[in-house]
Amino acid sequence: MTDLLAVDAGGTSTRAIIVTADGECRGYGRAGSGNPISAGSDHAAGEVVAAVRAALDGAGSPRIGGIGVFAMAGASTHVAMGRVIAELEEAGVHADLELESDLLATFCSGAWEPDGYAVVAGTGAAAIRVRQGRQDAVADGLGWLLGDAGSGFWIGRRVVRAVAADLDGRGPATPLTGMLLDELGIHGDAGSAVAGRPNALRDLVEAVYGRRPIDLATFAPLAFASDDPVAAAIRAGARQALRAALDAVRDPEVTGPVVAGGSVLGALGSVDDVSSPIGPVRGVPDGAVGAAVLALRANGVTVDRRVFERVTASLRLLRG
Amino acid sequence: MTDLLAVDAGGTSTRAIIVTADGECRGYGRAGSGNPISAGSDHAAGEVVAAVRAALDGAGSPRIGGIGVFAMAGASTHVAMGRVIAELEEAGVHADLELESDLLATFCSGAWEPDGYAVVAGTGAAAIRVRQGRQDAVADGLGWLLGDAGSGFWIGRRVVRAVAADLDGRGPATPLTGMLLDELGIHGDAGSAVAGRPNALRDLVEAVYGRRPIDLATFAPLAFASDDPVAAAIRAGARQALRAALDAVRDPEVTGPVVAGGSVLGALGSVDDVSSPIGPVRGVPDGAVGAAVLALRANGVTVDRRVFERVTASLRLLRG
Repeated sequence: MTDLLAVDAGGTSTRAIIVTADGECRGYGRAGSGNPISAGSDHAAGEVVAAVRAALDGAGSPRIGGIGVFAMAGASTHVAMGRVIAELEEAGVHADLELESDLLATFCSGAWEPDGYAVVAGTGAAAIRVRQGRQDAVADGLGWLLGDAGSGFWIGRRVVRAVAADLDGRGPATPLTGMLLDELGIHGDAGSAVAGRPNALRDLVEAVYGRRPIDLATFAPLAFASDDPVAAAIRAGARQALRAALDAVRDPEVTGPVVAGGSVLGALGSVDDVSSPIGPVRGVPDGAVGAAVLALRANGVTVDRRVFERVTASLRLLRG
Repeated sequence: MTDLLAVDAGGTSTRAIIVTADGECRGYGRAGSGNPISAGSDHAAGEVVAAVRAALDGAGSPRIGGIGVFAMAGASTHVAMGRVIAELEEAGVHADLELESDLLATFCSGAWEPDGYAVVAGTGAAAIRVRQGRQDAVADGLGWLLGDAGSGFWIGRRVVRAVAADLDGRGPATPLTGMLLDELGIHGDAGSAVAGRPNALRDLVEAVYGRRPIDLATFAPLAFASDDPVAAAIRAGARQALRAALDAVRDPEVTGPVVAGGSVLGALGSVDDVSSPIGPVRGVPDGAVGAAVLALRANGVTVDRRVFERVTASLRLLRG
């Protein structure tokens, strides 16, 4: 049997894996954002191709066949798949491609069991219920404008708004203000103002509106770097939002592990606090293992604990 | 003396006034959004010119001179003023143009006194303190991403997010859901779902991300059309945010009227509730009278109560 291709395309980075039919990962590649919503459709396609090419190189030009799995955010059918397919064919990859939920890939990165839950907070945020290996219910994951409560964007937006409120006196003073202004290189005299607006705030407005809205996610780490009440309230709000998403998909008939993924959920620390007692909580860095698991299953391979552990261990070696 | 030109450019509409040196409004014109942030720089310039031409027509081709005043949101120096000036010269308007704060124009629409406050909630939201006729302090007015707490965008965004949370079970059920889906023409079977996401929610995501973020402001009226706890909480949050903005600019040394402007503040109803006891509260529809007052002052005219009332009464006649 030929080898299989699996891709886990996220808002921050994209991972590609070449896996044998018995679960041995032979190639791994990583590139930038493969999310067309945040990175643009063409750019996302380019990053996906770059990750796949790196994985193919790592595996020593394997023969790829069967069904390949692309795990991507729900709305990501807008990725320029035509371009991806053309470029992959050029690179010698002939496989049928199947789109899968990135949230299901996260679950399958931490669980070989057919039932359970995943909660993810990175650039976006969502929770899913998994039943018989399929995504059975989803809460949130609705993007920066409509949802993603508890995500990096959600936290970063609150940081910036809290700083703005501090600067014009609507909100409490917070060390986040000095941290954010430093990060943006704004060193205006705190006392100076034009038409009653502090110069530092004017510079902040210009800096924020000069970026894409989604880039506010880059300020999320500030909320984890301060112990003041404003930062603590933002973190508490994020935990509460993620707990609400998980509660919304909870079903007493479905028991199993809770897989927790995404950089923000890692930073929030108390994953147990978020998930409460449904089942054991397992943290995963991303959906790479799960994308490979989904590719195996798509080709009729039964992924039990033994196969799952082979995928996990061999991929860990490749990632170093 | 020649007649004077005044323009009040807002996020929803733009108003132009031709006023004589003794405060008699002779021409009035109205056009669409003159805010380059929400409407685009070129489009905004076109609307400003359309409003001015209508006012010139109404006044019977007056001779315009002296200093003309353009009242616009703080960031609106990005409007294509070069194009505005060129088109106005072509229309026979030769005047020096001075940019003024739209918030100060709102204050001057309701007060001839030199000191006081204004609180505005329309597409955006802000509060100012006025001392000796100048804007002395401003709170919020920072745009949809960074602030504008209590504005039409702020309310509309909360409506849409509450509906999304209702649809995927993260939040309480609310009649806002049926109202919003009706307005968007989404009639998906409530029970049907793909990959665990209700079809109505999928359609909502598509509808929202197919618009400009600022267009969420168009859903604000729904929050005023329902008496359920979710809508009531959104309205209460808006009042609280506007009160915080006004509190932030309050100064015990500055007493005077509180001028309340903007469609949202009107709909919130209890302006007194927002402003609490600083001084008498006066509601105004926009900054049109104030722009004319600022034009008179820019040309050395003293605007006392008598002149102010002449401006107000003559403009009311023109607006019908």
